[in-house]
This record gives sequence, structure tokens and C-alpha cells, in this order.
Amino acid sequence: MKNLIKIINESLDEYMPIIYPEEIFKAMKYTLMLPGKRLRPVMCLETARILGCDIKKVLPSACAIEMLHVQSLIHDDLPCMDNDDFRRGKPSNHKVFGEANAILAGDALLTFAPQLIIEKSTDLSATQIVRIIHEFTKFGGAYGLIAGQVVDIESEGGKLVKSPEETLDFIHLNKTAVLFRLAVRIGAIAAGADDSVTNEFDVFAKKFGLAFQIYDDIMDEISSFEELGKTTGKDKASGKLTYVSLYGLESAKKKFNYLINDCYDIIDKYNSEIFNEILDKLKTRIES
Amino acid sequence: MKNLIKIINESLDEYMPIIYPEEIFKAMKYTLMLPGKRLRPVMCLETARILGCDIKKVLPSACAIEMLHVQSLIHDDLPCMDNDDFRRGKPSNHKVFGEANAILAGDALLTFAPQLIIEKSTDLSATQIVRIIHEFTKFGGAYGLIAGQVVDIESEGGKLVKSPEETLDFIHLNKTAVLFRLAVRIGAIAAGADDSVTNEFDVFAKKFGLAFQIYDDIMDEISSFEELGKTTGKDKASGKLTYVSLYGLESAKKKFNYLINDCYDIIDKYNSEIFNEILDKLKTRIES
Repeated sequence: MKNLIKIINESLDEYMPIIYPEEIFKAMKYTLMLPGKRLRPVMCLETARILGCDIKKVLPSACAIEMLHVQSLIHDDLPCMDNDDFRRGKPSNHKVFGEANAILAGDALLTFAPQLIIEKSTDLSATQIVRIIHEFTKFGGAYGLIAGQVVDIESEGGKLVKSPEETLDFIHLNKTAVLFRLAVRIGAIAAGADDSVTNEFDVFAKKFGLAFQIYDDIMDEISSFEELGKTTGKDKASGKLTYVSLYGLESAKKKFNYLINDCYDIIDKYNSEIFNEILDKLKTRIES
Repeated sequence: MKNLIKIINESLDEYMPIIYPEEIFKAMKYTLMLPGKRLRPVMCLETARILGCDIKKVLPSACAIEMLHVQSLIHDDLPCMDNDDFRRGKPSNHKVFGEANAILAGDALLTFAPQLIIEKSTDLSATQIVRIIHEFTKFGGAYGLIAGQVVDIESEGGKLVKSPEETLDFIHLNKTAVLFRLAVRIGAIAAGADDSVTNEFDVFAKKFGLAFQIYDDIMDEISSFEELGKTTGKDKASGKLTYVSLYGLESAKKKFNYLINDCYDIIDKYNSEIFNEILDKLKTRIES
């Protein structure tokens, strides 16, 4: 896991130049290079690897997924959205570079990511690249990530078009699970996996994404600032729609365990240390 | 020309669905469907046509270029950028849908555009699609359109890294010419043109883009609100770096004529009514 994160960080640094006009490239690189778990690119690389693909082939795509993730963080932090002054323990992008540059840095990451896939994926066929970018644009846009963010904002304003349960499912699937799905799907496509295998990983990522979001909701409820390194209890204070607020803490833990166990079952046959490590970490923290 | 605009408007309407969550699709479609000259998609289609390509083949890409253009308008109008309340005579996107949705609508157009190219370009090869999306991401991102916008904002704040002349050239090339270049290049790629032909159209679009920007600068200087339908003299009042402010009105007109005449020369052999109509319109208004 540490080794993969190191490879990802080095690649992100290498792929992202600082050229004229430097301000925009610096803004893009600033949030991109903040230390993170790199969970999405790790899962992309590991999926490709256990399906028999050299991870070098899929490294540009894995980094592109992290760029998409970081883009959504930069825009989410803006004053007119979540208005967060900090990200990963550092001042958020607009606090350092100003709002205009933060918006443009997000836009630039959104276009740079597919550009990177095209320019650096020398070992993938044109058909594979088209499929990867198709997934990338679908899952990263109004049919995925952005839809999740829009419904999340609407629900915070108390405006629900669907029932609270359906709305919460939609937000979890589109705001959280969607990038894990994208990660494993791209890994599978790069490995030349057939549709049934790709779908199996997709189901895994969907369950993992939901578990990950419920984990986040539980942690916000039960942890202290010291434990998480960020303000907790924020969801409750703002009356936010979460798994815990809707179903209660015990039910949330039950659902989390059920989903995580499904994840172990699906991934079992691949003997993946990395995936087991990721699942173990989440499970241990909820149980402790 | 009118016929092409009609086809483009109908296609944009057809390509852009309104589905759940409707707010984001409505926001995307709102600015997209405001009446415009559709100059960039028109030039894309016409380039493809005169190079022997059925325009149906390139229609999704032409519409994607308009989406990229509209995305940049939505984000440019935001309070932290140009702070414009009106666009094409109507309230700007954030005035209707709020800032958060306007930012997300722009993001969504940036991802929807390549998605559209992939899903609807059934008559193009995977290699052509990869080349088209590569141009799209390069010209639309930090190596093109966004770089132009960043330097434009910097120059308005009086922060110049290069000389005023170089800075102005950079802004004109990247903020204005870049999407005309993208339009003709994609038209040429769809038509299967060789590099020398693609480059010829590229040179045309570069000259046209510069002429178009100088035209805009001149019009801002000499027209009344009634003639243009928007506030004029804004550039001068704000001390903005323009061709007119840097070189004077006469020199600007000279440069404009020189560039437009070059454009006529390059395009002459194709006997294109559409390109001649576009050039004639600009030329007549400057001369009158």
C-alpha cells in the first residue's frame, strides 16, 4: 500500500508541470499534492494488477481519477458551496490562490485529466482509451459525481424531490461510490477484463463506496476532533441527511458490517493484500 | 449560415436531456440554448464539409465545442471573475440558478462535451475520437482557454509577467483564437485531412481569432450601447489591456484589415460561401 502511494505521488508530481502561466499550474498542483490516502488510484492500480495488467499501463488513468477527485474537492470547498477553509489540514485552494483561480484550477484539472490519459497511456489501444474516457466523463459529470453534489446541496437546503431514503442513496452512490466504481472499472478495462469481471468489481466498489460513506457518517457522530483531525458533529449540527441521522447509529453499524463483509466475499478469490488492507482498516476503526 | 445555425440549435437541444437531478441539467441547458451566433460550431461543420466530410459525422464534436465555449462564459460571468449579470441579453447563469449550480453546470458541460463526442460520433474511428478529444482537452484547458483567462485576470489586476505586447498576444491567442482553432482542427480531423491541410486551417483560425478580438476591441471603443446591445467603453474605463489601448485605433484597424485579408486569401480556393459570409460581416462593420 505505501509503495503504491509512493508511486502515485511521484507520478502526479511528474505529470503536473509548472509552466506559464504558473499561477494556474501551481493552483492545480497545490491541492493535488497535499498528502492523501490516494484510495481511488490505489484501487484502480490494484484492480488492474490482480487482473494481470502491468500497473504502468494504467498509471496515467489512475492519476487522472485522483485529479477528478481533487477537482471536486477544490470546487466543494468554495464559499458558495461547503465554504471550507481547510483541506487535508492545509488552507483550501481558494484561500491560497483566490476564488477565481480555484474555480479555474478545478476546470483545468477536469480537462487535464483526460489529456493525461491520452498522452501517457502509450500501451493502451485507442478503443481502450475511448472506453476509459467515456467512463471518466460519465461518472465524473452530470450523470455521476456532479449529480451527487447537486442533490447533496439541495437536500441541505431541505429541498427533496424524492423520499429521504432514496435521496440519501442517490447522494451516497453518486457523490462517494461513483469514483470507487470508476477506479475499479478503469483498472478492469485496462486489463482487458470481460464485462462480467468488470461488473463484479463494480458491485464491489458500489458496496465499498456505501460502506465508506456510512463509515464517514458514523465517525462524524462518534469521534472527537483529536481523533479525526477535523471538526466533528458538523453533520448533526447542520441537520444533514446522513445514514446515522436517518436510520440511527446501531442500524448504520449493522449496514456497514453487512456491506464490508460482502466486499470481503467478492474480493476473496483474488488474494489481494491491498484490498484486504483497505477493508481491514475501515472495519477495525468502526469496531474499536 | 442560417441553416447551419438551425441544425446546431436543434442538435444542442436534442443532445442535452433534462433528467434527475433536473436543476443541474436545466442550468446547463439554460445558457447553452440562449440565442448565439454559433460561430465556432459553424466553422467546425464548414471546415469538415469543404474537406469532403458529411457534416453529420462531426455534428456531436461541433456541439461539444459550443458547450466548451458556453462553459467558459458561465464561469467567466461569476461574481469572483468578470461579475456579469447579463449574458446574451438574459440574466447570467448564476443569477438564475445561484453560484453553486452555475459552477457545477460549467463543470458538467466540461465533462458532458467529450462524453457526447464519444456517444454520438458513431461514424468516426476510435483513433479519430482520441485525436479529437486530445485537441479538445489541450485547447480547452490549462494549455489553452484557461491559460488565456488566467493571464487576462492577472493583467486586469496589473500583474504582468511578460511585456504588455506579449501578454496581449497570449490572451488573444488563448482566450479567443483557441476555440476557432479547435473548431477547424476538429473539422479537419473528422474529414481525415492530412497535417498540412489541418495546419492551413489552423493558421486561418489563428488569424481569424486575432481579427475577431481586435474587432471586439474596436467595437467596444467606437460603438454605442444601442448598436451593440451591451455596455460599451467598459475596456477603456477599466484600463483593460486591449489592441486599441496598446496600439491606438488606427493601428488596430490596419492590423484587423491585414489579418482579414490573409483569411480571405487562405480560404479562397475552397469557395466557401459560409466562410466568406463570416469574413464579410466582420469587415463590413469595421468599414462602416
